[in-house]
Amino acid sequence: MDKMLQPTDLVGATFWLTSLAMIAATAFFFLERKRVADRWKTAVTVAGVVTLVSAIHYFYMRDIWVTTGAVPTVFRFVDWQLTVPMQVVSFYLVLMAVATVSAALFWRLLVASEVMIAAAYLGAAGYMSPTLGFLIAAAGGLYILGEIYLGEASKVNSASGNESTQSAFNALRLIATIGWAIYPLGYFMEYLGGGVDTLSLNVIYNLADFLNKIAFGLVIYRAAVRDSS
Amino acid sequence: MDKMLQPTDLVGATFWLTSLAMIAATAFFFLERKRVADRWKTAVTVAGVVTLVSAIHYFYMRDIWVTTGAVPTVFRFVDWQLTVPMQVVSFYLVLMAVATVSAALFWRLLVASEVMIAAAYLGAAGYMSPTLGFLIAAAGGLYILGEIYLGEASKVNSASGNESTQSAFNALRLIATIGWAIYPLGYFMEYLGGGVDTLSLNVIYNLADFLNKIAFGLVIYRAAVRDSS
Amino acid sequence: MDKMLQPTDLVGATFWLTSLAMIAATAFFFLERKRVADRWKTAVTVAGVVTLVSAIHYFYMRDIWVTTGAVPTVFRFVDWQLTVPMQVVSFYLVLMAVATVSAALFWRLLVASEVMIAAAYLGAAGYMSPTLGFLIAAAGGLYILGEIYLGEASKVNSASGNESTQSAFNALRLIATIGWAIYPLGYFMEYLGGGVDTLSLNVIYNLADFLNKIAFGLVIYRAAVRDSS
Amino acid sequence: MDKMLQPTDLVGATFWLTSLAMIAATAFFFLERKRVADRWKTAVTVAGVVTLVSAIHYFYMRDIWVTTGAVPTVFRFVDWQLTVPMQVVSFYLVLMAVATVSAALFWRLLVASEVMIAAAYLGAAGYMSPTLGFLIAAAGGLYILGEIYLGEASKVNSASGNESTQSAFNALRLIATIGWAIYPLGYFMEYLGGGVDTLSLNVIYNLADFLNKIAFGLVIYRAAVRDSS
Amino acid sequence: MDKMLQPTDLVGATFWLTSLAMIAATAFFFLERKRVADRWKTAVTVAGVVTLVSAIHYFYMRDIWVTTGAVPTVFRFVDWQLTVPMQVVSFYLVLMAVATVSAALFWRLLVASEVMIAAAYLGAAGYMSPTLGFLIAAAGGLYILGEIYLGEASKVNSASGNESTQSAFNALRLIATIGWAIYPLGYFMEYLGGGVDTLSLNVIYNLADFLNKIAFGLVIYRAAVRDSS
Repeated sequence: MDKMLQPTDLVGATFWLTSLAMIAATAFFFLERKRVADRWKTAVTVAGVVTLVSAIHYFYMRDIWVTTGAVPTVFRFVDWQLTVPMQVVSFYLVLMAVATVSAALFWRLLVASEVMIAAAYLGAAGYMSPTLGFLIAAAGGLYILGEIYLGEASKVNSASGNESTQSAFNALRLIATIGWAIYPLGYFMEYLGGGVDTLSLNVIYNLADFLNKIAFGLVIYRAAVRDSS
Repeated sequence: MDKMLQPTDLVGATFWLTSLAMIAATAFFFLERKRVADRWKTAVTVAGVVTLVSAIHYFYMRDIWVTTGAVPTVFRFVDWQLTVPMQVVSFYLVLMAVATVSAALFWRLLVASEVMIAAAYLGAAGYMSPTLGFLIAAAGGLYILGEIYLGEASKVNSASGNESTQSAFNALRLIATIGWAIYPLGYFMEYLGGGVDTLSLNVIYNLADFLNKIAFGLVIYRAAVRDSS
Repeated sequence: MDKMLQPTDLVGATFWLTSLAMIAATAFFFLERKRVADRWKTAVTVAGVVTLVSAIHYFYMRDIWVTTGAVPTVFRFVDWQLTVPMQVVSFYLVLMAVATVSAALFWRLLVASEVMIAAAYLGAAGYMSPTLGFLIAAAGGLYILGEIYLGEASKVNSASGNESTQSAFNALRLIATIGWAIYPLGYFMEYLGGGVDTLSLNVIYNLADFLNKIAFGLVIYRAAVRDSS
Repeated sequence: MDKMLQPTDLVGATFWLTSLAMIAATAFFFLERKRVADRWKTAVTVAGVVTLVSAIHYFYMRDIWVTTGAVPTVFRFVDWQLTVPMQVVSFYLVLMAVATVSAALFWRLLVASEVMIAAAYLGAAGYMSPTLGFLIAAAGGLYILGEIYLGEASKVNSASGNESTQSAFNALRLIATIGWAIYPLGYFMEYLGGGVDTLSLNVIYNLADFLNKIAFGLVIYRAAVRDSS
Repeated sequence: MDKMLQPTDLVGATFWLTSLAMIAATAFFFLERKRVADRWKTAVTVAGVVTLVSAIHYFYMRDIWVTTGAVPTVFRFVDWQLTVPMQVVSFYLVLMAVATVSAALFWRLLVASEVMIAAAYLGAAGYMSPTLGFLIAAAGGLYILGEIYLGEASKVNSASGNESTQSAFNALRLIATIGWAIYPLGYFMEYLGGGVDTLSLNVIYNLADFLNKIAFGLVIYRAAVRDSS
């Protein structure tokens, strides 16, 4: 019985909700992938792989939650280390579907996002000063924003002349700017600020992951369907 | 042995039955999805994702049942928070298969159904007055009924001129009106009325979920097959 | 160790055998479904869904067996309540592949088989007099036999002029008459007669399920393949 | 910890190896099945179903191994009762892909192999004299060898004039003659001879199953690919 | 709780990371396989089967890690015995997609890699002198390098005239030379040198497996996609 969600446990309910939603999203993306044009398939595959990884990790975290009543933020970095780079690389994959993009862009996005999450993890787990971790991660994050707002990615998008993709690119950019802002904010408050209510933090992270991963994937899926018919 | 269904446990038998039925329905929808025309595939995918989420959650609830002899209704809200909006949005997806529908309709149906379930959950779990939760949820529910009987959804359906879809739309509307009425009724009796026999309530919810999710999906599937050949 | 099959446990071995065979059959039907003509796909899907449900339930029953040394017959009703109606409806699906059949036949077969199993369960679990349960179930079973030997189903089959289907229909009818006869016989002996050796009964039910579900599906599959090329 | 493979446990390592190899083979056959011509698909499906059944059973046996330090041979009969007949029937399926074969051959192969394994099991588990079990099983095995070397199967193969199939048929015959010889030998030594080192026996059975099931399937797969292009 | 990853356990985090990454890679390869030309499918299938086997084994190893705080290297040999030969054979499969290659090359690569891993295992587990195991394994490894740099495989590659494949072949060769060098180095230090820090060794093996298996597969996948359009 102690491994069971309590009826009035709102935090736990959000763990349950997100874990089921990630499975639902994975099934949706993997099945609907067949409907989109070939050049869009990889982007939709990656959207589904992101939610698959999160689904498995959330089932693990919800077990931790019901057993211990806490999910330390560092657990989430295992998920983020894999899924955030996949999502950042999705900017490249979306452009690839409709334009010619240099392989260098792929590598810049991949490395910047891997460094960003790795630094944050090392800071959060105490293998590095939290401040230094934050600064390196912030640099990585700002670089990515620069790339998608001002850099090659942004220019390829403008030049593509494909309306579905441009509208999706802008929506993804918005999620990456506003939706993802929750993570550095939470990091700052938890590891650099005066502490934080970990219950609220878990609720916020759960719902943020729900939106940032599933809505992100749905934006890509919608562009793919529109551009396929 | 205490984690085992007892032979004469009728309530438990309905948990077993519904969990297996949800898996059966998921396999059916995911496989048969390949047979229907492309424009119908998303609606059938969503029908299968709904039963997939329910299947996973029912397996979890049947474990709670055999361990504790009770499944408090609040557990069900995790499932409903995901599946009811997907079903409400299915009205939009069914119309999309045969007509042009505004994206605004999608958002109105999604938001109304999310608010409806969230309010009911907060009232049931005690984070909000049960009466207030009921009133907000009722408003959401009435709005959805208005949309599918009188609003844009209803008009698009009438104008579509597609017999298979119209017949399906009417059947779905009927399920949403009569089949789904069990949930506000149960809520009223459990949280606002003088109490309720939780054993009977679980049997009723199990069989209602069985019909409301599987029959709902089969109606969509049948229209999809008829309109595909 | 107490959750482990004992080497000389013949009854347990049949639980193991049937559970693995159901998985094998499910994989076979789901993969081979792709080979048959579209009009046959639904019948083959249902054959695989039947064995899928049985597979899951048999894994559960074999756990009960090794833990308690007994699997009361009432556990089997959860499986039968889902799979028997799916099999009865398969008579309709097979005819649908090659002829025009009224929807009313579908509903008559579905309702008759649901009532048959529900009555038997209620009698076996003690919610109803076993004799009354037997009589209602027998009425349902006789109605189904009447339908497939003398009624609309039989006539549509004769008129279809499709040799593959007619040969399959006759084989399915044979399984339903002879193979399924084991269940009312077992019920009669266990709940109405002077008792029964539950060990032998489990062996008989395990092997009967093995044949009645897998052979039944293979007959449909063979007709589908022959009629597809 | 007592349910864990010990680093120096060579027998256990072969259980681990075979269980993983069976999963790998199953995934391979099920995916690559899509590449081969339709008339070859059933044979490849069955190759994958054979390794699927073995995979599941080997995961169960490796648990028995780490818990008890022994896997009595009788456990293996559950697997063999299903997989050996499927492999014997594969001779028929391979011929079916390129020639006309009588249904009677299918039934003779199926019944002979079922009887062979059932008799061996009953002898091994003590439900029948081990000698009698051995003799009946040997008769079944010799009949099968007669069928594939001298009987209808052999003649259809010679007459087919299809080089890919003939080469595969010969390779399968070789596996069935030499590779499968390990089982009657082991049976003879364990139940009729003066006893046997059960550790070595498990290693031999594990590696024999590895080769006899996976190599057998790969031979079929290779013929299917060659004959499909 | 003692079966739970500790927040500051960097070694454990790499087990988690690699296990999830292997699942992500498997899903990616199996889905994207459908996009590539038929002659490339087998190579991509094998890339996915490699990560599938690793995924299952890593989940098992991460359980060992959290329970015991150590994963002796010998456990990894079960995985390597299956996955390394599959990867070595991939050199053959990649060439097969664009040229005519002798079956003898397949067998030489398979046998050399099986012997290499088997000898290393027997040395590591103490069934053979670690030095002898190392020498035999080294001979196998050098043979494979000879084959892909100087032997038939290398010549077929040069002669193929297919740029995508040649570029992939070179990248795979690089991974096999540099990336795989970590394994004999680790073996030398652990079993022949003066001992090794097993914590660091696990981190290194985890990250090496991550790169050597997933990057290896992605190189094949990329060549397949480029050569398919």
